[in-house]
Amino acid sequence: MTAFKPTDPEFAERIRSSFAKQGVMHLLGARLDDIEPGLCRISVPFRGELSQQDGFFHAGITGTIGDSAGGYAGYTLMPEASRVLTVEFKINLLRPASGSIMVAEGRVVRAGRNLTFTQVTIEVGDGKTMKACASMSQTLACIVP
Amino acid sequence: MTAFKPTDPEFAERIRSSFAKQGVMHLLGARLDDIEPGLCRISVPFRGELSQQDGFFHAGITGTIGDSAGGYAGYTLMPEASRVLTVEFKINLLRPASGSIMVAEGRVVRAGRNLTFTQVTIEVGDGKTMKACASMSQTLACIVP
Amino acid sequence: MTAFKPTDPEFAERIRSSFAKQGVMHLLGARLDDIEPGLCRISVPFRGELSQQDGFFHAGITGTIGDSAGGYAGYTLMPEASRVLTVEFKINLLRPASGSIMVAEGRVVRAGRNLTFTQVTIEVGDGKTMKACASMSQTLACIVP
Amino acid sequence: MTAFKPTDPEFAERIRSSFAKQGVMHLLGARLDDIEPGLCRISVPFRGELSQQDGFFHAGITGTIGDSAGGYAGYTLMPEASRVLTVEFKINLLRPASGSIMVAEGRVVRAGRNLTFTQVTIEVGDGKTMKACASMSQTLACIVP
Repeated sequence: MTAFKPTDPEFAERIRSSFAKQGVMHLLGARLDDIEPGLCRISVPFRGELSQQDGFFHAGITGTIGDSAGGYAGYTLMPEASRVLTVEFKINLLRPASGSIMVAEGRVVRAGRNLTFTQVTIEVGDGKTMKACASMSQTLACIVP
Repeated sequence: MTAFKPTDPEFAERIRSSFAKQGVMHLLGARLDDIEPGLCRISVPFRGELSQQDGFFHAGITGTIGDSAGGYAGYTLMPEASRVLTVEFKINLLRPASGSIMVAEGRVVRAGRNLTFTQVTIEVGDGKTMKACASMSQTLACIVP
Repeated sequence: MTAFKPTDPEFAERIRSSFAKQGVMHLLGARLDDIEPGLCRISVPFRGELSQQDGFFHAGITGTIGDSAGGYAGYTLMPEASRVLTVEFKINLLRPASGSIMVAEGRVVRAGRNLTFTQVTIEVGDGKTMKACASMSQTLACIVP
Repeated sequence: MTAFKPTDPEFAERIRSSFAKQGVMHLLGARLDDIEPGLCRISVPFRGELSQQDGFFHAGITGTIGDSAGGYAGYTLMPEASRVLTVEFKINLLRPASGSIMVAEGRVVRAGRNLTFTQVTIEVGDGKTMKACASMSQTLACIVP
């Protein structure tokens, strides 16, 4: 693993402020647990409103917190006056997302000037025993005005 | 386009009943607009609670209604006593998802006994003029008890 | 389908010249069958050297001609002095690629200044009766010196 | 990382025999370097016949050895009398694949009865200094007669 050096020393505040503007994170009850250079962790407790038809977390919710975790991992390394957009992501669902909490951990694999590639692992469980339930790969674009 | 023939004549009711059990569709305010053999359309009106940091639909929401539209398109062709699970999906975001309503249209491309492949187009706009904002491909598994 | 208008009137010659430089297309025995604005068709006849362990076309070969078909479809719309690079592609294998010829048809879905999104359908058969054996989605980057 | 236990003690020979039947591996000059439970490494030396238009390894070749590396990683854990098929793979190209040798390392992340999920890292360089040039995720199906 490469150690990443953000160019913006205030990256953590920039991301907390951006996270606070994501209406959907409030709606889901998601929390920004960790933000480090090239890394972001987001968690969401289960409730019935996040379920698919069998009572597990809906794959779209898994994708939503995964997309934000990967996106903010990449955004830690982008310049102060930039925006981040998701170009694409792919998610593989490895097991039914059954548990009381889900945690997405996004990590930057390759940070380019325009495009950044991240991988995200999503785990589910009771908060102590956690199992990987999904794996995501993601391309981000850095938009500088 | 192949014309698909569902083996379960009650497929539409089966899917409406499953959709009603998806807590997340209620939470998002999503509607099941259309259900035909091998096809499903789901729409969701915009509100701030569905936004990312720039005020557009969050990519995860685009993925969520896309995943359900593709999943139910595939589920129309599965047997009565089956369950449908998403194995994986990939979504490419073509433009910022800015508009008052978003519509996902899922279509079955290939229905196998165990695995089904779908494509989903997601459009956004004011309900009259709509533009493609995302394109998804998806693999589903049919689980028969 | 949008009608695309290339900015480079000599796009077809530019692409034929680029195709001729792809050593791998010679190695596979692939042919550039069609090149139109936003579209490219490439075919490759079967021989044992293109097989996987069961005697079908290897999925990597399907991916290789698909990647070139999508890449050149996108390249038709890029400026004269540009290069095209694949950012990512995903391929779903719909059936075993069994037949005497395989044809990949790439189409541009969305052409941006920096990034282009394409979809590619790959068919296999005897040249008369052809069946879709794979579906690909692809992101391209346009590099202007 | 979980330690995987193959059910077939002869898995390595089974895979060497399957690899020998892949005509395309001979055509590319690829070598099976390593085969362990849940892991496979395949390498291919550069030559002009494997290039795209700028003289690098063609992305399709990267995908081809990646697909075989992931596929055989998964196949180590499948039963003796099974076949392995690729359901889908996605590859992100992280840098131009420029170098004298390319190595793909596939690892099983999750092995199910029917479906297996792998990740593949592809590196390129001079054989001593190697850099990641691509990252792949892949779904495999295990077919038991």
